[in-house]
Amino acid sequence: MKVKSFSQILRQSIKKSKSQLCVGLDIDLDKMSPKSSDSLNNLKKITKNLIDQTIDNVVAYKLNLAFFEVFGSKGYKWLEDTIKYIDGKKLLIGDGKRGDIGNTTNKYANSLFDHFGFDAITVSPYMGQDSIIPFIKYKNKGIFVLCLTSNPSARDIQLKEASGLSVFRRVISMVRDIDDNKNLGLVIGATKPEQIADIRLEAGDLPFLIPGIGAQGGNLEESLLAGNNENGLAIINVSRSIIYSKDPSFSSRDYNEKINNIIS
Amino acid sequence: MKVKSFSQILRQSIKKSKSQLCVGLDIDLDKMSPKSSDSLNNLKKITKNLIDQTIDNVVAYKLNLAFFEVFGSKGYKWLEDTIKYIDGKKLLIGDGKRGDIGNTTNKYANSLFDHFGFDAITVSPYMGQDSIIPFIKYKNKGIFVLCLTSNPSARDIQLKEASGLSVFRRVISMVRDIDDNKNLGLVIGATKPEQIADIRLEAGDLPFLIPGIGAQGGNLEESLLAGNNENGLAIINVSRSIIYSKDPSFSSRDYNEKINNIIS
Repeated sequence: MKVKSFSQILRQSIKKSKSQLCVGLDIDLDKMSPKSSDSLNNLKKITKNLIDQTIDNVVAYKLNLAFFEVFGSKGYKWLEDTIKYIDGKKLLIGDGKRGDIGNTTNKYANSLFDHFGFDAITVSPYMGQDSIIPFIKYKNKGIFVLCLTSNPSARDIQLKEASGLSVFRRVISMVRDIDDNKNLGLVIGATKPEQIADIRLEAGDLPFLIPGIGAQGGNLEESLLAGNNENGLAIINVSRSIIYSKDPSFSSRDYNEKINNIIS
Repeated sequence: MKVKSFSQILRQSIKKSKSQLCVGLDIDLDKMSPKSSDSLNNLKKITKNLIDQTIDNVVAYKLNLAFFEVFGSKGYKWLEDTIKYIDGKKLLIGDGKRGDIGNTTNKYANSLFDHFGFDAITVSPYMGQDSIIPFIKYKNKGIFVLCLTSNPSARDIQLKEASGLSVFRRVISMVRDIDDNKNLGLVIGATKPEQIADIRLEAGDLPFLIPGIGAQGGNLEESLLAGNNENGLAIINVSRSIIYSKDPSFSSRDYNEKINNIIS
């Protein structure tokens, strides 16, 4: 049987779920209101409630590994339980921004794709294509490479001009060069909407994962209009403004409707 | 009581252990000979044996998180047990090349320094100084920032000239600019010895973590002579050529003696 590429899987998942919204499950008890017990059992309960409330409105969940890792091995158990609870109903993005070489990258691929069962991951490009290629052979799994991020100090490295091209543009061309399996994508921060349209032109049909909407101040409409088209899809990640809202069910439905209105 | 900076701690640890050798515990059963059971209990036994055989000859152990993460939550339990077994006798470097921003970086600091108790970590600079600053407040903990790595595709990003300076040189100046707590360092691959002397000139007294010796082909003598001096110390990481050798006790002692002969 022919294995579908991640880009095909993403397209079908968007169609099926009628959603390009990804909810980031960055659960931080310090930000929960009312402040509640920090036992892992309580965290697991909160996670499951959040999933129940949002699952009809999303195409994917993004699991930020730091928020689990802070509890050590027990936190990774919580991650395993969360993945099991979602049970393949939605795409799962493991957001760990891993970036290493050869042997080590193979281990990360085994970990994130085989052990945890993520459908997609985020990767940092600083070590070059060696740090991406070992993931590519998993054709049905997605690899979103950090390109232009939403934080102020993105300028320290990403916006430097390197031999006439800014560093993040070099990342785009490097990613396109090695995308033989149609399973690569880019992480593009929503706080730079003026640049997203240019990036879309250069990136062809690479899917975008766009964080930075909501708490980080990115503009949803501008980002989507610039980053999403029929060939090149964008999924919008929202974390804090949904998971810490009074009514995550309402806010995820509201975000999803807004997204669908903008792109229709 | 005044908290010592990591650079002071590193200097004292080197003096006390008479070693600038770091052993990378990247334990991969596929490479062990004879091939043995892949039960976690067996891995834990192998790890403890390796530590027993090498501990007299090292200043630090580097734990590559990928090799533990591949077993999921149980792998992180193995990591916790390994750290407990070393019990503060040697410096522990958590090699995860984490690189994220603000809130997430705080979680990684909590995870790696508070929960696991690492003395130092590796960090990727692609997202700029936002991805490093949250770690710095842990004055007695070390942060080794990826600078020029030992893999061929380091050239994809790191060696590009950005506004007249190659990207890895921008990383050096960024790191120096924010090193108020004297706890930052650089990861410099040993496969580029011709560049290490230049990097040492630019990096002042930042400590270097130098991987790439042994299996990756880096030259020990050239790297040390270029990267290590009285003010700017280098620690040499060796993984495969020690942990997969017939006699890790002998090979770690041998590496340590070689290092001490070169720098004396």
